[in-house]
Amino acid sequence: MGSALARASLAAGHRVTVWNRSLAKTTALVDHGADLAASVADAAEASDVLIVCLFDHRSVHDVLDPVVDRLAGREVINLTTTSPDGARELARWAADHDATYLDGGIMAIPEMVGTAQSKVLYSGSQRVFDQNRPLLETWGSAEYFGDDAGMASLYDLALLASMYAMFAGFFHGAAMVGAAGVPAKEFAVRAADWLRAMAPAVIDYADVIDGGDYAVPGQQSLEFSDISDIVAASGAHGVSTELVDVVQRLIHRQIDAGHGAEGFARVIESLKAVAA
Amino acid sequence: MGSALARASLAAGHRVTVWNRSLAKTTALVDHGADLAASVADAAEASDVLIVCLFDHRSVHDVLDPVVDRLAGREVINLTTTSPDGARELARWAADHDATYLDGGIMAIPEMVGTAQSKVLYSGSQRVFDQNRPLLETWGSAEYFGDDAGMASLYDLALLASMYAMFAGFFHGAAMVGAAGVPAKEFAVRAADWLRAMAPAVIDYADVIDGGDYAVPGQQSLEFSDISDIVAASGAHGVSTELVDVVQRLIHRQIDAGHGAEGFARVIESLKAVAA
Ligand SMILES: NC(=O)c1ccc[n+]([C@@H]2O[C@H](COP(=O)([O-])OP(=O)(O)OC[C@H]3O[C@@H](n4cnc5c(N)ncnc54)[C@H](OP(=O)(O)O)[C@@H]3O)[C@@H](O)[C@H]2O)c1
Ligand SMILES: NC(=O)c1ccc[n+]([C@@H]2O[C@H](COP(=O)([O-])OP(=O)(O)OC[C@H]3O[C@@H](n4cnc5c(N)ncnc54)[C@H](OP(=O)(O)O)[C@@H]3O)[C@@H](O)[C@H]2O)c1
Repeated sequence: MGSALARASLAAGHRVTVWNRSLAKTTALVDHGADLAASVADAAEASDVLIVCLFDHRSVHDVLDPVVDRLAGREVINLTTTSPDGARELARWAADHDATYLDGGIMAIPEMVGTAQSKVLYSGSQRVFDQNRPLLETWGSAEYFGDDAGMASLYDLALLASMYAMFAGFFHGAAMVGAAGVPAKEFAVRAADWLRAMAPAVIDYADVIDGGDYAVPGQQSLEFSDISDIVAASGAHGVSTELVDVVQRLIHRQIDAGHGAEGFARVIESLKAVAA
Repeated sequence: MGSALARASLAAGHRVTVWNRSLAKTTALVDHGADLAASVADAAEASDVLIVCLFDHRSVHDVLDPVVDRLAGREVINLTTTSPDGARELARWAADHDATYLDGGIMAIPEMVGTAQSKVLYSGSQRVFDQNRPLLETWGSAEYFGDDAGMASLYDLALLASMYAMFAGFFHGAAMVGAAGVPAKEFAVRAADWLRAMAPAVIDYADVIDGGDYAVPGQQSLEFSDISDIVAASGAHGVSTELVDVVQRLIHRQIDAGHGAEGFARVIESLKAVAA
């Protein structure tokens, strides 16, 4: 991923100095016009803007802690995947050493970097984001999510959580009709259309959630959203009910609390319950 | 719903005889040109095609068992929501009384019936489906899913299962960013785009599932699909992990069985396991 980022920036005409623990991986980049730093310290001093893309949160500290005094006055843009709290810790760590920090979450694979399909979510220093926008856009579309450095990662994980739940739901549905002999592909073409058609409904749910009144008229009620028929048909066809059971539990926690006549969007309260 | 079906057929010029337990609900239909049957027996004899839309599977037997001898030689199109096994039972019951049976699952609310947004899934007798197509299309688009009478209901429930899991995933993601102060609407507009963009991936998963080789190259592996970071960030932000825990469990059941290097689509095997 680090190579893909460097290559896209070089292609756009930026001057890039590279360093990697294993020297061999820098050769192709030098061939493309990158300068080579002999050490991490040299790399840190080569530019006011330091782009970091390592394996994980720990490897960022492993590589940069020994040269942390060189970071003062510089901008650190970290594209290593970290947890929201990991990004927040790195922002504090950077601030403690007089560096400004921008965290990025890459929603692309290396082959996509620099194409219109690539998207990077950022949070942390707005100044670093604004001033380096042309550089950031060499990697893909760039969106800023506020000065909480953990927000890009949190957004990234939240979008992925929605996606994984959708995919799990697809597998569940495909297993249901598959039990009656339907090929997955026949179900998938319909499920793709259906899910695409239904996805925008989340915007209406969000309006209800933000509005703060789950009883606002005109919604599908929680009682109507009971999925006993799905659970029963799954079981009857030999499909594990563990996924639909948890959805049913989230719905019924609100019904059991006396909110059955309120809107389906109230399910979010079942997930927030831990914080309450 | 029965009123909406009758009204749409009347509007398209079909001759319709109506019966309902509570007489009052038939008045508006008679005003729209429907004939009124004095009894269920009269209603059954009024036409070769009997459209049934009652509360549930049991109410279909309650209403029709007393007049079942009148069904011989007729076609029964049942739009009452039933389970797949309920529809199969009704198909056998109809056959036992020399009637042919078509089951329908309405994917619309009454206000949508007769519009382009309305869709009805059918299964059971292909002859009944083919011969009554103009009538069926007065209610919305009509799709036939084969002679297993339970298939329309099974498809309906399978699509709904995918949708409910997607919505639950949205609520989970909204709760995650919500814990850091992001309004649900801000997340929803992005999640709607993201889910719409990702939904077609289910077609690729289906190709792998139907192909029968989960190890085919070029896929995202199960190991790469580990969602520990989502689970951890959810917990760290006070969001219940019960939904993402079950997704993680479905993924890890396959990894634990030694398939970590195979494709993500193998998750379906975790759901089919009960049948194995
Ligand atoms: N690949 C993707 O599709 C993708 C997508 C989105 C985000 N990301 C994120 O991008 C980051 C990099 O991913 P990748 O795919 O490029 O991974 P990778 O191929 O495993 O590269 C990891 C890099 O980190 C270096 N590294 C690891 N531990 C180190 C240590 N202790 N000291 C010094 N260097 C160390 C490695 O150096 P050596 O070359 O010496 O081993 C290598 O340059 C990850 O955080 C990943 O989550 C990747
Ligand atoms: N409404 C929707 O959005 C929707 C969407 C898709 C599918 N459906 C399905 O369509 C069917 C009808 O739904 P609906 O919304 O019209 O429900 P509804 O308003 O409750 O109507 C139920 C109908 O069944 C009759 N009924 C119930 N039990 C009976 C019994 N034992 N004997 C005789 N008649 C009986 C009722 O007669 P009375 O008038 O005398 O009570 C009434 O005509 C259900 O299976 C539902 O799942 C509805």
